[in-house]
Amino acid sequence: MIEVESKFRSPGNDKIEKALVRLGAKKTATQVMEDVYFAHPSRDFSRTDEALRLRKHEDAAELTYKGPRMKAENSKAREEVTLRIDNPLTAQRIVERLGFKESYIVKKKRSSYILDKLRVDVDDVEGLGEYVELEILTESPERATSLLELARKELDLNKLEPRTYLEMIIEKQSSA
Amino acid sequence: MIEVESKFRSPGNDKIEKALVRLGAKKTATQVMEDVYFAHPSRDFSRTDEALRLRKHEDAAELTYKGPRMKAENSKAREEVTLRIDNPLTAQRIVERLGFKESYIVKKKRSSYILDKLRVDVDDVEGLGEYVELEILTESPERATSLLELARKELDLNKLEPRTYLEMIIEKQSSA
Repeated sequence: MIEVESKFRSPGNDKIEKALVRLGAKKTATQVMEDVYFAHPSRDFSRTDEALRLRKHEDAAELTYKGPRMKAENSKAREEVTLRIDNPLTAQRIVERLGFKESYIVKKKRSSYILDKLRVDVDDVEGLGEYVELEILTESPERATSLLELARKELDLNKLEPRTYLEMIIEKQSSA
Repeated sequence: MIEVESKFRSPGNDKIEKALVRLGAKKTATQVMEDVYFAHPSRDFSRTDEALRLRKHEDAAELTYKGPRMKAENSKAREEVTLRIDNPLTAQRIVERLGFKESYIVKKKRSSYILDKLRVDVDDVEGLGEYVELEILTESPERATSLLELARKELDLNKLEPRTYLEMIIEKQSSA
């Protein structure tokens, strides 16, 4: 399965959430999430454009491998492999025993909506501000891009943010 | 938590299982297990005496990191970190995307018994034959060794097998 997604700077999360309700989107969750990213013991993920992420939220946790991004117009597609897990501490210990090192933590409050085939995440990211992510899981990246573009216009999202939160936090920390 | 265990060549699994019943042991499960072992992308597990194992059995799966063995008399202790997982295929895919390679598979039929504080596994291992493992999970390796020795005598187990099944399979394949 391929995830195609676009991220935009939010013109204001309150405004976006009201627009989503008007469009008939369904709110599925509001959660505080902590994402722990790991450095590989022998591979430089910043060069290979991969990531290993342990996501902890209130009612669950998951371990995700993200493959290199394949560029599409105004969006990105990448392989995601996600394993749901019961015990994030145990998962983190195994990963660390194998030589992976905790590198960065991204914390955010996320409200998630379903708008037809799309998932819309309205994020407030610690230290970075407000963003909106449009995502679609698909076997057909081309059609996904058209659906994303439609939602982008409906929500009046104009400031594309091509970087991941992780990249933004790394840049912020290295320029500090 | 430390696992202290001893493995012995079985004088016959039927005989052992009858003796266990006589001693009041409780049978907890009989399962066919497939253990997939992985090679680390940059660390030689055969030198560091570690292992990463994905165990699949009928009703569950688990991912286990095993740390180096600490030698005790006639037994071995090592750190084990085990994560229960719902989806072994997804776990294997993440591990492989991170550069771990499937190295060996160990298949066995295992009948497990609980004898007071001990776990006794009566194993029939594909290509290797019949073995009995005595195990105890403990924070006190010294006391565990005494309990193991008692059970060893009760079950008349005399042929200590210090190698893991994985090591035995590697030796068998490299001498073939």
